[in-house]
Amino acid sequence: MQTELSRHLGIEHAVFGFTPFPAVAAAITRAGGLGVLGAVRYTDPDALRRDLDWMQEHTGGKPYGLDVVMPARKVEGVSEADVEAMIPAGHRHFVRETLARHGVPELAAGDRSGWRITGWMEEVARAQLDAAFDYPVALLANALGPPPADVVTRAHAHGAVVAALAGSARHAARHAAAGIDIVVAQGYEAGGHTGEIATMVLTPEVVRAVDPLPVLAAGGIGNGEQIAAGLALGAQGVWLGSLWLTTDEAELHSPALTAKLLAAGSGDTVRSRALTGKPARQLRTAWTDAWDDPAGPGALPMPLQGLLVAEALSRIQRYEVEPLLGTPVGQIVGRMETRRSVRAVFDELTAGFERAVDRIDRIAGRA
Amino acid sequence: MQTELSRHLGIEHAVFGFTPFPAVAAAITRAGGLGVLGAVRYTDPDALRRDLDWMQEHTGGKPYGLDVVMPARKVEGVSEADVEAMIPAGHRHFVRETLARHGVPELAAGDRSGWRITGWMEEVARAQLDAAFDYPVALLANALGPPPADVVTRAHAHGAVVAALAGSARHAARHAAAGIDIVVAQGYEAGGHTGEIATMVLTPEVVRAVDPLPVLAAGGIGNGEQIAAGLALGAQGVWLGSLWLTTDEAELHSPALTAKLLAAGSGDTVRSRALTGKPARQLRTAWTDAWDDPAGPGALPMPLQGLLVAEALSRIQRYEVEPLLGTPVGQIVGRMETRRSVRAVFDELTAGFERAVDRIDRIAGRA
Repeated sequence: MQTELSRHLGIEHAVFGFTPFPAVAAAITRAGGLGVLGAVRYTDPDALRRDLDWMQEHTGGKPYGLDVVMPARKVEGVSEADVEAMIPAGHRHFVRETLARHGVPELAAGDRSGWRITGWMEEVARAQLDAAFDYPVALLANALGPPPADVVTRAHAHGAVVAALAGSARHAARHAAAGIDIVVAQGYEAGGHTGEIATMVLTPEVVRAVDPLPVLAAGGIGNGEQIAAGLALGAQGVWLGSLWLTTDEAELHSPALTAKLLAAGSGDTVRSRALTGKPARQLRTAWTDAWDDPAGPGALPMPLQGLLVAEALSRIQRYEVEPLLGTPVGQIVGRMETRRSVRAVFDELTAGFERAVDRIDRIAGRA
Repeated sequence: MQTELSRHLGIEHAVFGFTPFPAVAAAITRAGGLGVLGAVRYTDPDALRRDLDWMQEHTGGKPYGLDVVMPARKVEGVSEADVEAMIPAGHRHFVRETLARHGVPELAAGDRSGWRITGWMEEVARAQLDAAFDYPVALLANALGPPPADVVTRAHAHGAVVAALAGSARHAARHAAAGIDIVVAQGYEAGGHTGEIATMVLTPEVVRAVDPLPVLAAGGIGNGEQIAAGLALGAQGVWLGSLWLTTDEAELHSPALTAKLLAAGSGDTVRSRALTGKPARQLRTAWTDAWDDPAGPGALPMPLQGLLVAEALSRIQRYEVEPLLGTPVGQIVGRMETRRSVRAVFDELTAGFERAVDRIDRIAGRA
């Protein structure tokens, strides 16, 4: 599965795998794709360095990428405490009440960890980048549009290509104008932040909007047939995130969450503002229901919502409080049915792609 | 573009085109696809006979289909007047007020026409079928799930295959158990009634759920690349509805509506209950905004909403009141940019399909 882009990057298959877990990212790269490590949870740059050291040792010189979360617009002189002060008391009360209703225990001292608002703030992202540029990162992706101009320049000087996610052709064209190299067209059915245009419609629109830049199709892609579909739509590769969550290498540290993912159907996700304040697709849970309930206070805008719920999410995850337990994931969760190795998943992707091409060739009268 | 299903039906390309306009349906059939005429607006069976006579004369013996709207569950002894009586006065007031705010004139005497609730009621659908079975209809589709068992039996005796739309794998399996022959998997991005699962995810789920029945991919398909994608996902054909609305042969009788369709982007549709009471994708207008506004009364359930708004929609259409003027249409409306003949559209579909197969073959290293 070779495109101009995959050849440029020196990978065997035009499959880009996004994951927060180094072991998954490395396994994707080893299997012939390009593993992209999500950096948002690394509030400590030294922790990121340790994991990138590990990635170096386990990718055998093959290329991998890093995904940061960096807003293009900078907010000067605003501390986490300033942002904390903007959160209404009623919303804090709603969090306490919702957790209490489900009997969620307090965290033990020293047990605070996991997702923090700080990962969304530019100074943290810049510290992550300072660490990352000590490694041969081949691709730098930004989940919130194009990174600032100086970061693009620095990535290019480093020999890395820069990718940015877009949920509309208009956003994609803006990213292209900011000098990035690859647009990830993230469809409605994708896990995480996503717009309302489905992959089937979005991909060719973005391809046309940013031509000749390469586009990766993201959203709704979890098997080889879907990869063939994404490439038929004009993408130069596919970007998969959800599919790896139930692999053997994924360090979810929650048997209950893994079980929920394996049991969920394609209709069991919701596009909700509960997590960050912007619409993000995730498992539908009692938690998302509470925030999406018109009778409740509703989610705050980004970044307030993320800050408001960070500790609550840590508590829910730490104690695996089943009704509230969720994660960003796309509609393909319906086809995640068994735990398997990244290698097994990847081999099935490539085999399924070949079968889909056989089928299309027969339909076109070429086989 | 040949599949087992297209060969069975004796059509050149596995492209099924749904349309309310006989001239469009006939042109699709003549171009080598299968034109499917929507019957919902024919409250008079003789009008349907006249148009089917015309179809016979203009399809040169090639196969065509008919789409009826028939609920599988029968409501005995309920008249249109009974249903009228269930509509709250506040909702009628809201309709009057919304029309008045936009200065929509009353209809002249004898000007009442267009979409009526009656098209949704079983006795009307049965009268349509009595007419249809006097013609060599090759495919009978039902937009509200499987038709009643006796209709399926009658269609089969007539030599017609029966298709039913489904927005989830669960619904599709239920349709298959009812003895139908083809499932149309209607994705989130489609125009008209649609669920929340996008075509990219829905198509392979439905293919697996109803195997070995053939599946048509619907939603988000408006060019040859999207056809290739739908077929890569395991469909035996594609079902296109929106794309024909701006063809030369479409009798929209509204230059303002045609202009709105040509100008709209993929983000200018909304999945709203404003039209029928069930979520249906359509152009977003001041009318859908009014019904979707949390401060308003909200849409009534089907069939009440359709009955409530029927005359209002006729008035809006008759006087082309631009801000309120809409139609069911899918997200591909963003790519409907010029008026062209059905033949030109169809030829571009098949050429685009061949280009997409060329591309996929190159990526797979087969060309």
